[in-house]
Amino acid sequence: MDVKYVNPFVAATRAVFKTMLGIDVSMDKPRIKGDKMAFGDVTGVMGLVGDKKGTVSISFTQKGALFAYKTLVGDDGNGMSPEVIDAIGELTNIISGQARKELENAGINLKASIPTVVVGKEVQLHFVCAFPIVSLPFHFSTDNGQEAVYVDFSLE
Amino acid sequence: MDVKYVNPFVAATRAVFKTMLGIDVSMDKPRIKGDKMAFGDVTGVMGLVGDKKGTVSISFTQKGALFAYKTLVGDDGNGMSPEVIDAIGELTNIISGQARKELENAGINLKASIPTVVVGKEVQLHFVCAFPIVSLPFHFSTDNGQEAVYVDFSLE
Repeated sequence: MDVKYVNPFVAATRAVFKTMLGIDVSMDKPRIKGDKMAFGDVTGVMGLVGDKKGTVSISFTQKGALFAYKTLVGDDGNGMSPEVIDAIGELTNIISGQARKELENAGINLKASIPTVVVGKEVQLHFVCAFPIVSLPFHFSTDNGQEAVYVDFSLE
Repeated sequence: MDVKYVNPFVAATRAVFKTMLGIDVSMDKPRIKGDKMAFGDVTGVMGLVGDKKGTVSISFTQKGALFAYKTLVGDDGNGMSPEVIDAIGELTNIISGQARKELENAGINLKASIPTVVVGKEVQLHFVCAFPIVSLPFHFSTDNGQEAVYVDFSLE
């Protein structure tokens, strides 16, 4: 996977967490996924169409999703309420939008569909594509320790 | 929801099941979804982009998915194997493609992303959109009784 595809997703994730949530995310080593499964309890997914076709997904733990919601909106949320799910969808939308802006600078024009948010324990989320899925493992600090966020994408 | 959006998905589902699987599907009364949840154990999801933005999903029971796989490929599959999941992704792709062809005749041009297949029990699948989700409940006969398939879509 060309680094010109990776950096826009890294930069977009960092920028959106910082701007929207005031959170500094740290990234561990990116990897190529073998298993095609989602990490996490709450995953926003968006299709990408244009010069290339692809998918991007952003996976939170339930605790991480609730922390993001609380930081964004100011209240505790009520478990995985529709408001929390909409907020995760919106974050997915904004990170995808920012990544697409940065991909434009690399000459790749993409449009995005509307997000789908998948909620559940032990959910398997398979990108049906012949191309590798790049997984970007981020983490951030909350009042109750570290939470992980995975930004996975594939462009073919 | 304008019927000109509904009929292409109905016609595409019928045609693809008939052509690819030799299966006659029957449709029960379409409804507007209130709950934004997926029915079923295996769901193919695709984003749609173009004159409108949207999402289409096709949900199978596990038994229904295995029956479709066996009919398509000729072997039993091995539970929810990668081959079965790819086949469900491909069926989703083909139904979406056929629906897009029929929508073109109504003057609506859409492109599709690559499919994502979500597998899991009690999975919630939320389309993050302000527009209604139309749910088309189909069923078909197998050697072991009826199986349900839901084709859900939203276009905004």
